[in-house]
Amino acid sequence: MFKKRDNIREVEEGKYLSPKFDENGLIPVITRDSKTGDILMHGYMNEVSLKKTIETKEAHYWSRSRKKMWRKGEISGFFQKVKEIRIDDDQDSVCLSVDIGDGASCHVGYRSCFYRSVPLGKIKNDTEIELEFKEKKKIFDPKKVYKDEPNPTKL
Amino acid sequence: MFKKRDNIREVEEGKYLSPKFDENGLIPVITRDSKTGDILMHGYMNEVSLKKTIETKEAHYWSRSRKKMWRKGEISGFFQKVKEIRIDDDQDSVCLSVDIGDGASCHVGYRSCFYRSVPLGKIKNDTEIELEFKEKKKIFDPKKVYKDEPNPTKL
Repeated sequence: MFKKRDNIREVEEGKYLSPKFDENGLIPVITRDSKTGDILMHGYMNEVSLKKTIETKEAHYWSRSRKKMWRKGEISGFFQKVKEIRIDDDQDSVCLSVDIGDGASCHVGYRSCFYRSVPLGKIKNDTEIELEFKEKKKIFDPKKVYKDEPNPTKL
Repeated sequence: MFKKRDNIREVEEGKYLSPKFDENGLIPVITRDSKTGDILMHGYMNEVSLKKTIETKEAHYWSRSRKKMWRKGEISGFFQKVKEIRIDDDQDSVCLSVDIGDGASCHVGYRSCFYRSVPLGKIKNDTEIELEFKEKKKIFDPKKVYKDEPNPTKL
């Protein structure tokens, strides 16, 4: 339980944490590299994982594909040490700044999950918008690290 | 329409944009300041607003509270010029880098929506977790800028 959301002014300008969880009990989380400022991943937390993250200073998420709490790095070893947590104006999203050392955050093997950019400007054919790879080198080989774990990506 | 998501390897390692919209037709969006790297806001786009953003290079979101597409800045004048769009590994979230000049992104008046931090460590009383204000000065007075517009924050 957190402080009840009973007043918009309190939620926006007040001093108490009153996060809003969505209809599935989740709040979206932006995770950035505390050293470079790069965006590493976008995830979700439920109430338990948010509290666990605050108390342990290690990022814990809710895995929507595996339907369970997930201590980031529990399989890969790439833990995230939390340096700062921020909450937004209406308290329905969270931003973590984390230290991942020389590690990676992306299950595909890149440092950041956001390794591809979308070209800007007039769209000629929306079924063939070509992405540009901004990270070219993987930090690890996911086959070696995750072995027989199912891929969390869903179509 | 975008390229069909029919193959996990293509979604993760392929070169085509195949975003995944949730059951409400939305994809979450992280917006960061292209100059400072600071996180400015967390929002949502539908297919139309994502395409509009790509083509116009101005951020367009889906407002869940007003239930309509929303060109950021249409009321406040604080437009967001899009410098880069990235998509994540499983293509279910987007990150924009935007130029907001000397403006603001937060309807409460701060430059960033993430103006408060959550203290780390043992939680003594979960209904009274005290936030710390990291931005102390508002960039604008929301009463003057938004006048009679309804507040988008929902309890």
